[in-house]
Amino acid sequence: MKVLGLSGSLRAGSHNSKLLRAAGDLLPEEAELVEFDGLKLIPPFDEDDEHTRPDTVQALFDAIASADAVLVATPEYNHSLPGQFKNALDWMSRPPEPPFDGKVVAIMGASPGPVGTARVQYDLRKVLVFMNAFTVNKPEVFIANCASKFDAQGNLTDEASAKFIGDLLVSLQNLKTRVG
Amino acid sequence: MKVLGLSGSLRAGSHNSKLLRAAGDLLPEEAELVEFDGLKLIPPFDEDDEHTRPDTVQALFDAIASADAVLVATPEYNHSLPGQFKNALDWMSRPPEPPFDGKVVAIMGASPGPVGTARVQYDLRKVLVFMNAFTVNKPEVFIANCASKFDAQGNLTDEASAKFIGDLLVSLQNLKTRVG
Amino acid sequence: MKVLGLSGSLRAGSHNSKLLRAAGDLLPEEAELVEFDGLKLIPPFDEDDEHTRPDTVQALFDAIASADAVLVATPEYNHSLPGQFKNALDWMSRPPEPPFDGKVVAIMGASPGPVGTARVQYDLRKVLVFMNAFTVNKPEVFIANCASKFDAQGNLTDEASAKFIGDLLVSLQNLKTRVG
Amino acid sequence: MKVLGLSGSLRAGSHNSKLLRAAGDLLPEEAELVEFDGLKLIPPFDEDDEHTRPDTVQALFDAIASADAVLVATPEYNHSLPGQFKNALDWMSRPPEPPFDGKVVAIMGASPGPVGTARVQYDLRKVLVFMNAFTVNKPEVFIANCASKFDAQGNLTDEASAKFIGDLLVSLQNLKTRVG
Repeated sequence: MKVLGLSGSLRAGSHNSKLLRAAGDLLPEEAELVEFDGLKLIPPFDEDDEHTRPDTVQALFDAIASADAVLVATPEYNHSLPGQFKNALDWMSRPPEPPFDGKVVAIMGASPGPVGTARVQYDLRKVLVFMNAFTVNKPEVFIANCASKFDAQGNLTDEASAKFIGDLLVSLQNLKTRVG
Repeated sequence: MKVLGLSGSLRAGSHNSKLLRAAGDLLPEEAELVEFDGLKLIPPFDEDDEHTRPDTVQALFDAIASADAVLVATPEYNHSLPGQFKNALDWMSRPPEPPFDGKVVAIMGASPGPVGTARVQYDLRKVLVFMNAFTVNKPEVFIANCASKFDAQGNLTDEASAKFIGDLLVSLQNLKTRVG
Repeated sequence: MKVLGLSGSLRAGSHNSKLLRAAGDLLPEEAELVEFDGLKLIPPFDEDDEHTRPDTVQALFDAIASADAVLVATPEYNHSLPGQFKNALDWMSRPPEPPFDGKVVAIMGASPGPVGTARVQYDLRKVLVFMNAFTVNKPEVFIANCASKFDAQGNLTDEASAKFIGDLLVSLQNLKTRVG
Repeated sequence: MKVLGLSGSLRAGSHNSKLLRAAGDLLPEEAELVEFDGLKLIPPFDEDDEHTRPDTVQALFDAIASADAVLVATPEYNHSLPGQFKNALDWMSRPPEPPFDGKVVAIMGASPGPVGTARVQYDLRKVLVFMNAFTVNKPEVFIANCASKFDAQGNLTDEASAKFIGDLLVSLQNLKTRVG
């Protein structure tokens, strides 16, 4: 199973990118996780421009389309989706062949505060209803107070969080198996 | 009263921009509405970059800060906020002096489909809770099936819609008066 | 396939109950829809009482557990779930064996106003994430201005609405087949 | 200032009722908080019955109408509003003179889990938009892992939580002063 990791954050030291790295380490040997790293390059979605899909956008299309499943790790900005991440999703919803259609998706998120991205995850789920993805229900993975859960090298050191992520990956694989 | 109009859409023929124009015509003489037109120029919000606020971002900061009130007209993209509009809001939440703090805001939206942006407006309201704005409750203005409600020159011709917008402007003025 | 119909409304002439009746007529011969009619009898959910499950609550448990799929038709009260319907759902989430776990669910709704229950449906979807149901994504069925879409006998006469409901039933059957 | 406390929970040992008691103790001397205690008695809202308002419903109408402000403390049931609490709110939205119209409202919530009612509070805010209340933005008070924050007598012992509640009460008073 080839899993595409999408981080909703752009910054170099993103905790959400570190979550994806941790997820990659937790996957069984026969599966692999590749993180998409071109989010910042995607231009503003403007319906006037959409008939010429930029290469940076096509790269994300292709990455999603060729993956067996998608794992999102997103922070919460102002209680909702980071704008640039949502902008990328806006491009992804356009025909032909929007790549989330029928794709299996799992969601997790880290935040420095206590709520752990509980708010943004339902906004993302709502977007994925429109996109017609199969979104994993459980476990819901909210990594609160995230600054304390990684070591200086960016490795996830909190065992409870690692357990949640491992369980989420199992759910993702099971859902993929179930819906085909 | 100086009202800043913010359209969530980038395209030239945006129905939401036309709604703002219609609102400008409906304001009483002593009030004026100016539409911000630099949304597309705002770069992706990246926490690594935020300590140097770009001029394009500063322009929106200043436009909001110097307005007495803000009127948003936004489409709904994939059931939530247009990414580039949310990206601009993400910049606006950062210190020093985030300009929505204590600002009076009204929301409306147009969509070509039947729901008329009912979904996105609560996501925006949730963002504005974080921003600490005063958001007008009523009327909630959902302009559904919008393509039929403007003439070829982009003038709003639907009387019911114009009535809603006029009532929203009255509510905006009343709320501004009330909270100071 | 045995489909349980759940109406979120209590009133005798509920448009949402009529939607369920219309759905029953649209099902293929080998499937049947039965509407649960004991919603009003369910007492307030109080954690102090939950260890003795009332018969009226058990009846809903059993109806869901024995169905192959659930079809919800709910109005929108104050932009969210009707309280008594949510109260019934609150009972349904309690162990042992909460009956929505793994159940396939489709959602539709009718409202007299223009929005057609677009707001409540995402609140219900959020509840169903917690419940671990498989919820149909599409089509999203919003029956706006519903008073004009039924005849005096309560039959759905609007063809576009009937088409949406028929498509929803196909999606429900397909999802049931897919997830088993 | 007379503050009406509304707990969304019915159980005798409700943490949310304890939050209201703590809030009462934190109010300045010239203000008082009274908790409404008839929530369980309110019958299911059924539009067929609404023209005869039951006494139990009228009691809540009167309690809200005669208060200067309302303070809600609600748990989160299945990621949204407790059904019986929402049922009471459904009664409150009906004419004549729905009592939340123009009322100043503050929200807090306690949950045994880590999220601290972050999900339900935006559903409640959405309801209050329809109700046309003035809802306090900040601080947003999420009391997570609540079982550890009270002593055996039900007194709030967590200082950070008490500080949040105190700040919320100040915001409630300020908003009341501001909107009149």
